[in-house]
Amino acid sequence: MSAALAMAQGVENRTWPNPPVGAVVVKDGAIVGRGAHLGPGQLHAEPVALADAGDKARGGTLYVTLEPCNHTGRTGPCTEAVLASGVARVVIGIRDPNPTVSGGGARFLRERGLDVEIGILPESCLELIWPFVATDNFTRVFVELKTATSLDGRFAPGPELRQDGQPFYLTGEASRCDVHRRRRRVDLVLVGEGTVAADQPLLNGRLAMGDHDVPQTDPLPGYVDTDLSWQGGFAREHYLVFAGESARHGKARLKVEQDGGEILFCAEKAGHVEPKSLLELAATRDLFTVMVEGGPRLAGSMLFAGLVDRWINYMAPVVLGRGVTWPNDFAGPNVPDRGFSLTRLDQLEKDLLFIHDRKNFSATLARVTI
Amino acid sequence: MSAALAMAQGVENRTWPNPPVGAVVVKDGAIVGRGAHLGPGQLHAEPVALADAGDKARGGTLYVTLEPCNHTGRTGPCTEAVLASGVARVVIGIRDPNPTVSGGGARFLRERGLDVEIGILPESCLELIWPFVATDNFTRVFVELKTATSLDGRFAPGPELRQDGQPFYLTGEASRCDVHRRRRRVDLVLVGEGTVAADQPLLNGRLAMGDHDVPQTDPLPGYVDTDLSWQGGFAREHYLVFAGESARHGKARLKVEQDGGEILFCAEKAGHVEPKSLLELAATRDLFTVMVEGGPRLAGSMLFAGLVDRWINYMAPVVLGRGVTWPNDFAGPNVPDRGFSLTRLDQLEKDLLFIHDRKNFSATLARVTI
Repeated sequence: MSAALAMAQGVENRTWPNPPVGAVVVKDGAIVGRGAHLGPGQLHAEPVALADAGDKARGGTLYVTLEPCNHTGRTGPCTEAVLASGVARVVIGIRDPNPTVSGGGARFLRERGLDVEIGILPESCLELIWPFVATDNFTRVFVELKTATSLDGRFAPGPELRQDGQPFYLTGEASRCDVHRRRRRVDLVLVGEGTVAADQPLLNGRLAMGDHDVPQTDPLPGYVDTDLSWQGGFAREHYLVFAGESARHGKARLKVEQDGGEILFCAEKAGHVEPKSLLELAATRDLFTVMVEGGPRLAGSMLFAGLVDRWINYMAPVVLGRGVTWPNDFAGPNVPDRGFSLTRLDQLEKDLLFIHDRKNFSATLARVTI
Repeated sequence: MSAALAMAQGVENRTWPNPPVGAVVVKDGAIVGRGAHLGPGQLHAEPVALADAGDKARGGTLYVTLEPCNHTGRTGPCTEAVLASGVARVVIGIRDPNPTVSGGGARFLRERGLDVEIGILPESCLELIWPFVATDNFTRVFVELKTATSLDGRFAPGPELRQDGQPFYLTGEASRCDVHRRRRRVDLVLVGEGTVAADQPLLNGRLAMGDHDVPQTDPLPGYVDTDLSWQGGFAREHYLVFAGESARHGKARLKVEQDGGEILFCAEKAGHVEPKSLLELAATRDLFTVMVEGGPRLAGSMLFAGLVDRWINYMAPVVLGRGVTWPNDFAGPNVPDRGFSLTRLDQLEKDLLFIHDRKNFSATLARVTI
């Protein structure tokens, strides 16, 4: 199953809005076929792996990260291909989380005499397709919020704690690598205008270069600047700038466009780009998964609008005392928002990592492994 | 060893400035003697347990949470009592962390032919005496900071999220019980004037009532109010009020004293009680361990003055969006303070608990178990 996962994790062009799936065929203890789903309109992972195995599949075992589909979509049902291949056993990571539409694959295969096992490395297999699951098959864009704070809730130190020209790293190397790996898995990485001005971030996945279980291409970078007041350019060649409608006819857009920024004009509310409008525009560009990296104003506007699906927080064992913290001057939710549940708690060197999800990960996991 | 720990944990009057120690004697699989150190001038745990066992100790095993002392202080050396009892084996939780003063007990016993084992339930045994260890035998007061925040770093909601007359609980029942258990282990629980006014807290350990592994008496409650401007009383009969020297001759003290508050006048700095002076006054009252529970201004002043030994943070899976957060208008440390290290990371129902210590707990643990 690890090999099947690896097949899916490293797919070069992200498969969204389709879920990534990997498969391998094993015969006499050796891998004889490999396959991964490469994206919309492409073959599913199972037929690719079975074709790769050819005659060797007969009597062997198919490992697949997600339950084979039993319906005809843009491609034929995978269950038919599995049957035709002659494999004797099918080991499935997790059940299809949306059984009413496409499930029933495992039952179909069992009824035809195959030995079917479900729930192998289920956590990793669910993680692989989580953006797809969390958004109910991308009925909306998947938003992953990333924050990194000190123990006393600061995003960055005040100017007096910054050394001129030196980037200030709150978190350690392991946390930063983790962020870069996560960037590689999303379509768009987004920050606020303030972060661009303060940090000139590259927003790429350079620390994950060479890691075989993430795509090697970088996500598209972008920033939000309602009035296009930032005129200092951006360190990447092609990037998106989300501006307010009111900036469409101003002069400020010229410099931004000359620098390589592609401007998308969003609806505004109280002088700021409306987060929902921003995400709808991203969807029209086939950007299905977005990582929002702050600053706190952008983070808060996404969060308080209820648009964050997953919140990844890195906490460094540092006390700053002063510096950038959550804004207190705009409206939060009207009632305490208790909609997040803990998915993961970890230590990355000296930092803490905790991941909360809007859709309950553990409950979903329980549902797709029985 | 669990039984020995339990003996020490439930001692009614805290043993500070002496470390709590528990001991049991086991013979033929049954406990035949129990003892705990009860505080300064009282017998150590080992002689109490051995006396309780009497002749039955001969050939038995002594379990003790801390290495027996090998020096004569207010009581004779415990190692002599152990030898005289005739036990054949001694099982020790952790070595004495301060071997130059009082260690060598294990070696002494080994040299005299006893079977000695070290490092049983060492984490709990070190936890038991941590305030003593973290402050180098109470060369200063042990300060435990407790905070409870939402995911977005708020201590409490803004007034618009509070229901009239209803206390607002950010964290769950399990976290609140944990706080009450920790309160029972300290001498003084301290809050700021703002917290008294907003919450009228009892600051007792009522949710830990009946738990046998914590003292049944409540800690002394106290609050900080530099100018004694809070005149609304306090829900407990006897409590301390830490005020500034400048309030000594004002009229405000009358009402506070009538209500049962005992006022201690501290040095002031920039119009606020100086945290160091407050702790020095507490020490003169034999208050060796203090739990600071906020609000954020009091928490910050202790933290940024470098006076916090242990920081216990509960994080609730709630987004508030608005409300009380860290103050941004007073001086934090001049350089990022990277002095805390993670001791514990846990889940309490839906909340996260993380404990950071100024003195490295894991490194100390490694030192007292070899």
